[in-house]
Amino acid sequence: MAAITRIETGPRMSKAVIHGDTVYLAGIVADDPKQDVTGQTRQVLAEIDRLLALAGTDKSKLLRTNIWLADMSDFAAMNAVWDGWVIAGNTPARATVEASLATPDYRVEIMVVAAK
Amino acid sequence: MAAITRIETGPRMSKAVIHGDTVYLAGIVADDPKQDVTGQTRQVLAEIDRLLALAGTDKSKLLRTNIWLADMSDFAAMNAVWDGWVIAGNTPARATVEASLATPDYRVEIMVVAAK
Amino acid sequence: MAAITRIETGPRMSKAVIHGDTVYLAGIVADDPKQDVTGQTRQVLAEIDRLLALAGTDKSKLLRTNIWLADMSDFAAMNAVWDGWVIAGNTPARATVEASLATPDYRVEIMVVAAK
Repeated sequence: MAAITRIETGPRMSKAVIHGDTVYLAGIVADDPKQDVTGQTRQVLAEIDRLLALAGTDKSKLLRTNIWLADMSDFAAMNAVWDGWVIAGNTPARATVEASLATPDYRVEIMVVAAK
Repeated sequence: MAAITRIETGPRMSKAVIHGDTVYLAGIVADDPKQDVTGQTRQVLAEIDRLLALAGTDKSKLLRTNIWLADMSDFAAMNAVWDGWVIAGNTPARATVEASLATPDYRVEIMVVAAK
Repeated sequence: MAAITRIETGPRMSKAVIHGDTVYLAGIVADDPKQDVTGQTRQVLAEIDRLLALAGTDKSKLLRTNIWLADMSDFAAMNAVWDGWVIAGNTPARATVEASLATPDYRVEIMVVAAK
């Protein structure tokens, strides 16, 4: 069996779980949910960068991404930040749907799977 | 290629699919959707325990979890059951969003990926 | 580390990403969103067939599927197409929830993980 390594493990969830050479990140929301979707997306992607680094990988190895928007009218603003963040030629499989998140202030939540 | 083993395979979906040492479970809802979110969450997690056992693993090896709540106001009640079920130090990456489920009675659906 | 191969890679996402012997497809929506849910589901599944073939695999090796319906009242109509498409004995773990999609015309989006 491939080894399992957990990162920033709390009583409810881990921020990242490494299984063999696959890295599963938690759904990430902004630290400061008072920001607009642009600011929140930047915060989320910075946190994903941080967690991928802790897992020994980076955004060039993204495999799959799920994005939830509290309001689909934020799609273009979220994508503007996303498009500037991903690495050309290394983009993941992605799906984006609308969903209410843990509190009404959250505008975006992103959950990724990456290779290590 | 890693072997694929399917568990409780029906014409529409399988309850679990094992690929190499990764186990993918279906989205699980309560057998008795007349119960409240506490009862439904208990039923769902018991069914996940059962399916993980059939797949030759258990909740100590959870990798990733997606939770859908019909109403995010059930978040605390669902978490109270979840927090008592997961094993400290072995919690998965997790995301929870709101979504209407197959019928209005369903309050919670949980889909997990585990290691074998 | 297992190799990563990306298929139909754009600046925002890839249509498919192969990691070792796991294939992650993007969330697929219909090319022609003016069709009803039956037509859209057929289009989505045909596109999934096409992408799986490009990845060197097929629907007999589906592992996990997420389905989003814009309106859960389309559940039976989507399932009628799905049930005729999947291969008996080879059905994936699956979850279906309701979510608004990128534009109001889209009735269904499907994201699969398959073995190669």
